[in-house]
Amino acid sequence: MRSLDYAKVITKLVSFIQEKVEESNVKGVILGISGGVDSATVAYLAARAIGKEKVLGLVMPYHINRDVEDALLVCNNLGINYKVINIKSIVNEFEKNLDFELNNVSRGNIMSRTRMILLYAHANSKNYLVLGTSNRSEFLTGYFTKWGDSASDYAPLINLYKTEVWNIARILGVPNEIINKKPSAGLWEGQTDEKDLGITYKLLDEILYRLVDLKMKKENIARELNIPLNKVEYVESLIKKSEHKRKLPIGPEI
Amino acid sequence: MRSLDYAKVITKLVSFIQEKVEESNVKGVILGISGGVDSATVAYLAARAIGKEKVLGLVMPYHINRDVEDALLVCNNLGINYKVINIKSIVNEFEKNLDFELNNVSRGNIMSRTRMILLYAHANSKNYLVLGTSNRSEFLTGYFTKWGDSASDYAPLINLYKTEVWNIARILGVPNEIINKKPSAGLWEGQTDEKDLGITYKLLDEILYRLVDLKMKKENIARELNIPLNKVEYVESLIKKSEHKRKLPIGPEI
Repeated sequence: MRSLDYAKVITKLVSFIQEKVEESNVKGVILGISGGVDSATVAYLAARAIGKEKVLGLVMPYHINRDVEDALLVCNNLGINYKVINIKSIVNEFEKNLDFELNNVSRGNIMSRTRMILLYAHANSKNYLVLGTSNRSEFLTGYFTKWGDSASDYAPLINLYKTEVWNIARILGVPNEIINKKPSAGLWEGQTDEKDLGITYKLLDEILYRLVDLKMKKENIARELNIPLNKVEYVESLIKKSEHKRKLPIGPEI
Repeated sequence: MRSLDYAKVITKLVSFIQEKVEESNVKGVILGISGGVDSATVAYLAARAIGKEKVLGLVMPYHINRDVEDALLVCNNLGINYKVINIKSIVNEFEKNLDFELNNVSRGNIMSRTRMILLYAHANSKNYLVLGTSNRSEFLTGYFTKWGDSASDYAPLINLYKTEVWNIARILGVPNEIINKKPSAGLWEGQTDEKDLGITYKLLDEILYRLVDLKMKKENIARELNIPLNKVEYVESLIKKSEHKRKLPIGPEI
């Protein structure tokens, strides 16, 4: 992986948040706090950037599990304002209005988009910016819900790989139990990112960095990382299949 | 305004829809049908492009008014499949989970994003593409809900001005009562686009075309259209203020 001066990166992230808050002439920022490392990292950065009083965390569980405790741990450690809104009744209301069964992925998409709506309703009413918590590993592989968790005003971590976010989280003082737990989007019980993705973030980032940033040939990546070529081809296929998710809708040129 | 060969433009729009359906390996397209001219035009184009059996219209009222009849008129005229889902109970469920009052704009945003969620839930389950109905006049002035009505897979009309969509609608045979009625996003009773925008689409498009496409000087535009300079400056301000709405969320370069 690239070697980063993490102190400098953190300074850059903090000043980015400060600049956007000032430019947008808003009173603060709001973000969804899931209990995972990405949202915890953005919360720590935001509190450092503009002060805990101007940061509002929304804890929006569907399932009641340990993630909620971890989310509250982040909010209480930082001393930021927060609200807990269980989204089950809203997601159920969507389901009542559909005449077909939802599978886990579709229900997960509704959860993610429901959270986006709640974040923006609060942002509208408080004149806040919505901070996204997406990282580069998710963005490049399409491991997010289109117009859901990827929909925000600014996404401070969007150019940082997951393994780099872990390092930043440690430096910022995010609690270890959050850093060390298996990453999960929490869209269904027992879900983990790495099971979904079919690869560990550690290996995924090593491949993504060489494939996308360094533009290395697949064969050289496989040789350098001492892994089968099909692992690199698999990651390449994730990038290609999710291309449409990284673009605003287009129409024909007139 | 630019002079367009509308027969050619319609052919381009139809083949664009055909191409994207084929490329994406989907079984059809779905779109929200509001009773307005934009969604009616996209419905007519889609039915022409891939056949009425592969087009699903979702009529998603919040208010029960004439727009619903107009939406059903479009669906029945075309013979496409459609469903009517009243979104009030879903929007109410969002409101129940908020501890503050919504104003019209915020409630309108929730309506628009709720419709996006319903469209994508159906698209997921049927392996359909979501067609957006945004036009260039809305896109350039930011007259849409971010991650709401602007959120789709493809937006056939995105490069056509509203006044041009009217012309296309006439050629396609969209009913006159839909073409001739005052455009409205229907987000609250009595709302009209032109009241919100503070300018008629006719004048707005003439200014937008010169300002954005021809990159004319404001003073020359005012002189050419024989309008006060502040009208041009007003349109310019709409474009500037809405710039963030035409971009995916960014983060700092690392």
